Amino acid sequence: MASIQDVAKLAGVSKSTVSLVINNSGYVSEATRQRVEEAIDALQYTPSRLAQGLSRSHSGLIAVIVPDCAHPYFSTLVRSIEQRLATHEYMTIVCSAKENEQTEQWYLQMLGRKIVDGVITAGHTIDLSSYETSARPIVSIDRYITEEIPMVQADHKEAALLAAKKLLEAGVRHVTHFAGTKGIAVQSDVFNETLTELLTAHGVTVQSVPIGHNTFHPEEYQAAARKLFSRQITTDAIVGVDLAVMACMQEANRQHISVPGQLKLLSYDGTSLTRLTTPVLTSVVQPIGKIGETAADLIVQRICGEKITMNRYLLPVTLQPGGTC
Amino acid sequence: MASIQDVAKLAGVSKSTVSLVINNSGYVSEATRQRVEEAIDALQYTPSRLAQGLSRSHSGLIAVIVPDCAHPYFSTLVRSIEQRLATHEYMTIVCSAKENEQTEQWYLQMLGRKIVDGVITAGHTIDLSSYETSARPIVSIDRYITEEIPMVQADHKEAALLAAKKLLEAGVRHVTHFAGTKGIAVQSDVFNETLTELLTAHGVTVQSVPIGHNTFHPEEYQAAARKLFSRQITTDAIVGVDLAVMACMQEANRQHISVPGQLKLLSYDGTSLTRLTTPVLTSVVQPIGKIGETAADLIVQRICGEKITMNRYLLPVTLQPGGTC
Repeated sequence: MASIQDVAKLAGVSKSTVSLVINNSGYVSEATRQRVEEAIDALQYTPSRLAQGLSRSHSGLIAVIVPDCAHPYFSTLVRSIEQRLATHEYMTIVCSAKENEQTEQWYLQMLGRKIVDGVITAGHTIDLSSYETSARPIVSIDRYITEEIPMVQADHKEAALLAAKKLLEAGVRHVTHFAGTKGIAVQSDVFNETLTELLTAHGVTVQSVPIGHNTFHPEEYQAAARKLFSRQITTDAIVGVDLAVMACMQEANRQHISVPGQLKLLSYDGTSLTRLTTPVLTSVVQPIGKIGETAADLIVQRICGEKITMNRYLLPVTLQPGGTC
Repeated sequence: MASIQDVAKLAGVSKSTVSLVINNSGYVSEATRQRVEEAIDALQYTPSRLAQGLSRSHSGLIAVIVPDCAHPYFSTLVRSIEQRLATHEYMTIVCSAKENEQTEQWYLQMLGRKIVDGVITAGHTIDLSSYETSARPIVSIDRYITEEIPMVQADHKEAALLAAKKLLEAGVRHVTHFAGTKGIAVQSDVFNETLTELLTAHGVTVQSVPIGHNTFHPEEYQAAARKLFSRQITTDAIVGVDLAVMACMQEANRQHISVPGQLKLLSYDGTSLTRLTTPVLTSVVQPIGKIGETAADLIVQRICGEKITMNRYLLPVTLQPGGTC
């Protein structure tokens, strides 16, 4: 097997120049870089992780913690983070923290061992107390941790405004709101609170129904929808996360309740899924791609020691008209 | 900051014993392990990646290559691989190889640098020629690479049998088949070929329509569906991947074509999505969770140098009756 010495010799440069090229750090002229790369190719040299690690101060790895990487919102988020981090030459370790408590604990333990250069957390269910004392950069999505940790989120207040406007225009009087389970405070609670406030101010009754919304198991949402519909409550509109609203649409169809005639539906996050139903779901759309990219840029800036002046990034939402409200 | 010496001193053991405990390798008595762990906790010692790397021969990282980690099939696959690898104490690096050619090239380059202990590839679009000469263990999902590389897949032949049986029972005469784009040979081609064979043998005409099916951009599927419907071809059934069939159902609804009355729909992979539509999509269901777990177990076995006697793992499929066929 070829060594770094062999490469240096063939390219006619020093070992440290080879190392610079491998680690893409420091100034190396284009001609030299090319010579080194040709030597690497010719000798089929593959630097070991250790050799690389020894010559750079970082692992090139960033962990992304989500509740469930198969959930449409989080899978889209992970994709955008991963693709953006790759442009910064970082790879993404994905950690689904909600599926299994043991796994979650193990992930926290692993991340505590400095395997990664930074952590982007969109995991709203896990205990982050250990993070606050951590020396590694963190960027949070949709959850306030401390003043020092940048937070990226959709503009949930604007989202509530858009949703309320749409519902009021549609003339709804009794809204049922499938809201996330209470527990850890997340920024999306602002959507829930603002929406309730706005609707109530216009004489609309709002009933909140808690629902777990961080895993991608349709059966859970379907069970919640069936339970809601069996309670014979007076409601002419349902608002909730995409999967909950999709399950409600399915249940309404099953019970021959016409949408939007008898029942309006409006969903919030507005993932791609909502555009594959009939009719397309009226949704307030989170800029998931932009959220992921912003978080990725921020974590790299933090790792590189750049000063981050803002600690809160509010990204604009949009209304997808659809045909359910 | 506490060092490994501090931990060793507090626990009253040697540095190498601390290293064994950290890396979970070699024999250490339960009592000693506990003492070391208490010392680690008391001192809030976090071993550096380098310290760990130096004392173990592997990185504890496995890369999973998929075309797009936001695609419902691949996001479910990544979740099952990730969760299973965590039980083996490996973390998962996710690489979406299809979104962006530059990213794909960079990933291949990174993986060539021995950052990971092994690679699970479900990326059917990328050039794997460099893999074949690689020294790192590989497990492939749904694609034959070489005899030495274990391959995990659904039983596509059985899937075709189930689909053909269902379609014939429904009395279809003219099937349009949204099949994946040709190019690299993947095992799921067996589904396409066998289905065509079986249907043709029963006097059913089968028309194949190529469609890209590895990214999660509903618009692409919708455009393909619209194009198909605009061609006024004689067809009474459409078969294809979930997202393509969902897009066809949406287009049929838009054009007031009744499903399953005038048009039968049958999808294959049967991801969770297919259970959230109205009616539920009649689908042949791939055991995605099981595929991921099997691949995860195999890669760990290969990394540990265990002899793998089988090189092809065919996992059983099931029929989800649904209401579209």
